[in-house]
Amino acid sequence: MFFYTEKLINEIVPDQPDPDAAKALQETLGGHFGEMRTMMQFFFQSANFRGKAKPFRDLIRGVFVEEISHVELVMTTINKLLEGSGTSPADGNAGNAAIPLNEALRGGQIHHYLVGAQGSMPVDAAGNPWNGSWVYSSGNLIADLLDNLVLESTGRLQKCRIYEMSSNKTLRETLAFLIVRDTAHQIAFAKALETLGVNWGKVLPIPDIDISKYPECQKYIDRGWDKVQF
Amino acid sequence: MFFYTEKLINEIVPDQPDPDAAKALQETLGGHFGEMRTMMQFFFQSANFRGKAKPFRDLIRGVFVEEISHVELVMTTINKLLEGSGTSPADGNAGNAAIPLNEALRGGQIHHYLVGAQGSMPVDAAGNPWNGSWVYSSGNLIADLLDNLVLESTGRLQKCRIYEMSSNKTLRETLAFLIVRDTAHQIAFAKALETLGVNWGKVLPIPDIDISKYPECQKYIDRGWDKVQF
Amino acid sequence: MFFYTEKLINEIVPDQPDPDAAKALQETLGGHFGEMRTMMQFFFQSANFRGKAKPFRDLIRGVFVEEISHVELVMTTINKLLEGSGTSPADGNAGNAAIPLNEALRGGQIHHYLVGAQGSMPVDAAGNPWNGSWVYSSGNLIADLLDNLVLESTGRLQKCRIYEMSSNKTLRETLAFLIVRDTAHQIAFAKALETLGVNWGKVLPIPDIDISKYPECQKYIDRGWDKVQF
Amino acid sequence: MFFYTEKLINEIVPDQPDPDAAKALQETLGGHFGEMRTMMQFFFQSANFRGKAKPFRDLIRGVFVEEISHVELVMTTINKLLEGSGTSPADGNAGNAAIPLNEALRGGQIHHYLVGAQGSMPVDAAGNPWNGSWVYSSGNLIADLLDNLVLESTGRLQKCRIYEMSSNKTLRETLAFLIVRDTAHQIAFAKALETLGVNWGKVLPIPDIDISKYPECQKYIDRGWDKVQF
Amino acid sequence: MFFYTEKLINEIVPDQPDPDAAKALQETLGGHFGEMRTMMQFFFQSANFRGKAKPFRDLIRGVFVEEISHVELVMTTINKLLEGSGTSPADGNAGNAAIPLNEALRGGQIHHYLVGAQGSMPVDAAGNPWNGSWVYSSGNLIADLLDNLVLESTGRLQKCRIYEMSSNKTLRETLAFLIVRDTAHQIAFAKALETLGVNWGKVLPIPDIDISKYPECQKYIDRGWDKVQF
Amino acid sequence: MFFYTEKLINEIVPDQPDPDAAKALQETLGGHFGEMRTMMQFFFQSANFRGKAKPFRDLIRGVFVEEISHVELVMTTINKLLEGSGTSPADGNAGNAAIPLNEALRGGQIHHYLVGAQGSMPVDAAGNPWNGSWVYSSGNLIADLLDNLVLESTGRLQKCRIYEMSSNKTLRETLAFLIVRDTAHQIAFAKALETLGVNWGKVLPIPDIDISKYPECQKYIDRGWDKVQF
Ligand SMILES: [Ca+2]
Ligand SMILES: [Ca+2]
Ligand SMILES: [Ca+2]
Ligand SMILES: [Ca+2]
Ligand SMILES: [Ca+2]
Ligand SMILES: [Ca+2]
Repeated sequence: MFFYTEKLINEIVPDQPDPDAAKALQETLGGHFGEMRTMMQFFFQSANFRGKAKPFRDLIRGVFVEEISHVELVMTTINKLLEGSGTSPADGNAGNAAIPLNEALRGGQIHHYLVGAQGSMPVDAAGNPWNGSWVYSSGNLIADLLDNLVLESTGRLQKCRIYEMSSNKTLRETLAFLIVRDTAHQIAFAKALETLGVNWGKVLPIPDIDISKYPECQKYIDRGWDKVQF
Repeated sequence: MFFYTEKLINEIVPDQPDPDAAKALQETLGGHFGEMRTMMQFFFQSANFRGKAKPFRDLIRGVFVEEISHVELVMTTINKLLEGSGTSPADGNAGNAAIPLNEALRGGQIHHYLVGAQGSMPVDAAGNPWNGSWVYSSGNLIADLLDNLVLESTGRLQKCRIYEMSSNKTLRETLAFLIVRDTAHQIAFAKALETLGVNWGKVLPIPDIDISKYPECQKYIDRGWDKVQF
Repeated sequence: MFFYTEKLINEIVPDQPDPDAAKALQETLGGHFGEMRTMMQFFFQSANFRGKAKPFRDLIRGVFVEEISHVELVMTTINKLLEGSGTSPADGNAGNAAIPLNEALRGGQIHHYLVGAQGSMPVDAAGNPWNGSWVYSSGNLIADLLDNLVLESTGRLQKCRIYEMSSNKTLRETLAFLIVRDTAHQIAFAKALETLGVNWGKVLPIPDIDISKYPECQKYIDRGWDKVQF
Repeated sequence: MFFYTEKLINEIVPDQPDPDAAKALQETLGGHFGEMRTMMQFFFQSANFRGKAKPFRDLIRGVFVEEISHVELVMTTINKLLEGSGTSPADGNAGNAAIPLNEALRGGQIHHYLVGAQGSMPVDAAGNPWNGSWVYSSGNLIADLLDNLVLESTGRLQKCRIYEMSSNKTLRETLAFLIVRDTAHQIAFAKALETLGVNWGKVLPIPDIDISKYPECQKYIDRGWDKVQF
Repeated sequence: MFFYTEKLINEIVPDQPDPDAAKALQETLGGHFGEMRTMMQFFFQSANFRGKAKPFRDLIRGVFVEEISHVELVMTTINKLLEGSGTSPADGNAGNAAIPLNEALRGGQIHHYLVGAQGSMPVDAAGNPWNGSWVYSSGNLIADLLDNLVLESTGRLQKCRIYEMSSNKTLRETLAFLIVRDTAHQIAFAKALETLGVNWGKVLPIPDIDISKYPECQKYIDRGWDKVQF
Repeated sequence: MFFYTEKLINEIVPDQPDPDAAKALQETLGGHFGEMRTMMQFFFQSANFRGKAKPFRDLIRGVFVEEISHVELVMTTINKLLEGSGTSPADGNAGNAAIPLNEALRGGQIHHYLVGAQGSMPVDAAGNPWNGSWVYSSGNLIADLLDNLVLESTGRLQKCRIYEMSSNKTLRETLAFLIVRDTAHQIAFAKALETLGVNWGKVLPIPDIDISKYPECQKYIDRGWDKVQF
């Protein structure tokens, strides 16, 4: 069973609205390697787990529960990036002369204004809906852990790329937090694989970007959040 | 059996070409809550209808037949919004220096110029193809009517949003007509539910925008087209 | 604008319920080369038509309008094949011991009993939903006519194959009628191409099955329905 | 933020393995109106909520959190229905003569044995993957609540139909619990709509099956679980 | 069995990077009528071929093998059009102030920078992934050849349209080569149909654009590459 | 550029037709972890490769070229498993009484008889079409190699499971050959990762089934085909 307390897993840093950043960040929410995928993949793997190696199940389930909070954080960040863009609320009575939603035709993702009311959606940055075929739950523990490692690594790679697309502070703070947590999850899955026989030596983390160059990341690293499991 | 007479259900008002408006209006044609969905959903519900409550079947079928004309109207409006955009016909022999279809790379929906010849397509405003899984035909009359109400309400909501994206007259006239007809269909499905026990009180129409502020709507309201079934 | 009169384009011949035949016939309704595709493809091509060659537009539109009636006929046939299968109505109050919908687990298409109430759906024989990307409307007249010919030929080929899967009379009568009409549509599109320079010689119809061996077809051939346009 | 305690929201009742029941129950997990949809739809609606009407947001979020536990319950039930079917574990070293996974070719859903190791998947009963385009979060409160009502009603309708497909006790107990909870959620969304002006009179619940005829439901009704919000 | 030699089927002509052209050219790679489709369709048709008419199988297989090289050519062209766009490599350590991937938010296809590292992808110009349902392999020789003709004609039509969108030389040279080869393939499939009874008269090639007006095409025509099979 | 010689990469062993085995083997052709995916993924990765580490590109490209032959082998095996099932050719003139394609309604994959003429298709074992979103080409070498390892491991896992579903010799011989080659590809990608810092120790191969128990595999192991790259 699951419980909720009304508190985001990380704070939202204020900045200007930025619909283009909101469009890019949809990849981190509803993309092939986004947070909805990590959440659902670890949910299926932990619920489908059989056999006696319970510590592996507990690891996967622990990450799953944190990922629900990641999804909530990305949804909230996208909403913040959209809020106040354009010049009027989505359902206003603008009447004849005004075109308050004209913003929707000048960049960003048109569905943010047309299907939602400047709110997050379960789609990727190119507008493709999230797809259940992406979830990996093979029933083979090593294969599952390897795919989890690819998933966390690719998520981290994509977040680094989005970070380099815009200097918006709302965007970068959320990305920085999630990049640090992806690092911790990579390490966790890699260590689990090491107990099964792999030495990860110099390969991790993926990508091998020195995140100390992303200033928002430093405070999380100082707290050790790139190494501990929540 | 079905018949056709060569006449649009509403006139097309002339204005400049507007590829961005054409892209947005694709949602009203091929989107999750567009006219192709209303047409096919009411087609399936009326053809699959069983039992003795024929007046409900006749209501759904009557709306279905009107929706075919709505689809035709939106197709024609999109074509009008695309016609004359760019500087040459789609299949012309432009040769070396000219780039007559360069318009396709400067906004709008690239498929309008690449897959079609500046013509309408069965896709939504983000370019996703129409999907049969959206059609609702459960075989339970109340559930079907409720879903129809959600469908008409959401279609109306999205049309109001597109109306507020652009002041192009070709776009707005078609939207105004369809918003008024969605209102009438909402009322029809709501009344059908009332005969089964629901009192819709103050809830309808959805959204609760005062469409008298959309000047193109007024003439249709004066004719009572927001209340009668065609 | 479109109109309706309550009459199927061909009669439904009674026989036993046959859920397996209903599953197969879904291809003719919601498949890649089914009647929903022909209906929507000819709708888009005729509404998107530009230029002066109006007789071609009128041909395509005429076939489109007949195809709406084909869709209705296939929906009704599927419903008839499902009606009375299993032992109780879909929403009944069966209670403890009974398993009135057990039929759904013993073959056929489970969604016919689970998502619909023994009713037709916009999916193919393998359960995949209808997809808008299948519609062909290129804006090039010859290419459109050629694709229409492939569409009618493949529809005819698939109907012949379904005919050979079951001897159920409800199934075979609807197929026989549609095979004959596909033949007429093939000829119409081929003749249109001939006026543009192609000589179809010995190729048509596709497939080259002698449909006089399908006894249900003969009466339609005697009426010349494999040659005239409705 | 989200938390977990290792306890299912309802117990799993033991019975024989039943791969056909597992296939049907996939609709309740990964179908268009399954628990993954309710979970994600209420997640998006509550995270995207704006404005002052916080009690509505809290209602939707409360149901969302319960739905995570429903997803876990259905996953576990499917796993139980698959466990022990066939004659050997999925990854065994069967060698030459044996065909321990032959069960996979004799009914049920082949992916349960081929893609997963007799475990649940994010797909519907016909094998189609879960699709993000199904999530409804329009930003209009009444439209969202109406769609939630359709969603809960259709989920309840489909669960009643699956109940009538098989008398397997593992299957029926989980369905009975979820039917009762769907009833409570229908009432909650309907009451929320009533505060906004609708009188639901005699319409609910949908479908109008007397669930006192499903004996597994009675104990939950006795506890009032068809009326309270968890 | 298949073999490779490290040589492109045509040279890449240098020019400036052009992310918008790269986006458009994705249609020629991963679109409904792109080179991945021609490659896979002719692969399935030739491998599935039965019966004694081996020369037809050899024709289809010969074109298939050439199409693998076309796919490689388009991939390489897209990569060249993306290389050097923006101001830094995809995985660089840009740190605080810089936004080296800001290019991704200013046009083109965002996935080129986010999912790939400025590399080609199996999607169309609107970002939709390639779909196996597009492959046509009916088992009827005439129907297969007709669909191949539609496929080559539509591919040629779309390439002419992309040619007219941009004067980038890297783009136009690759398109010119492929347009000439599509012409040759059209002729080959048409001749095959002629041996089966069709006279193609004045219809081909489709579209009837005089490609001598595309100067990049002339040298290939002089070599006769619009008429011979490789 | 690519070349072909008319020889399968492994022989087809004769046995009875087996439509259920053909259905299962579709996963190995068109599934998420099937040979079409390996072929296209390695094609994109090698064509998109940048930088100086050419030996890695050559490794990936070498495997890609072998995978084209794997796709051809699986297509041919499926065709062999279908050939002669049922009682008549797909396009025959069966006439009134006969139902020569009745086989299509009694198990297996109905599209094998309806869409194709008892031929292979680009779909998985549950009938879902192949999807371009599955291809992984991130531009990060380690991430690409890791995903390739997951892909080969999962392909091997699924082939072992299909092997255990049926004792048909046509099926098992092709699977045995491909399992051995997957082993070699796993080793190749793992060694490439080792040069970059990982020690794979006891983890590989995945799954850890002792394939010496599959007698068809032994002769290939004796030749060392589980260790060398073709
Ligand atoms: Ca995460
Ligand atoms: Ca309408
Ligand atoms: Ca037809
Ligand atoms: Ca629920
Ligand atoms: Ca080509
Ligand atoms: Ca392989």
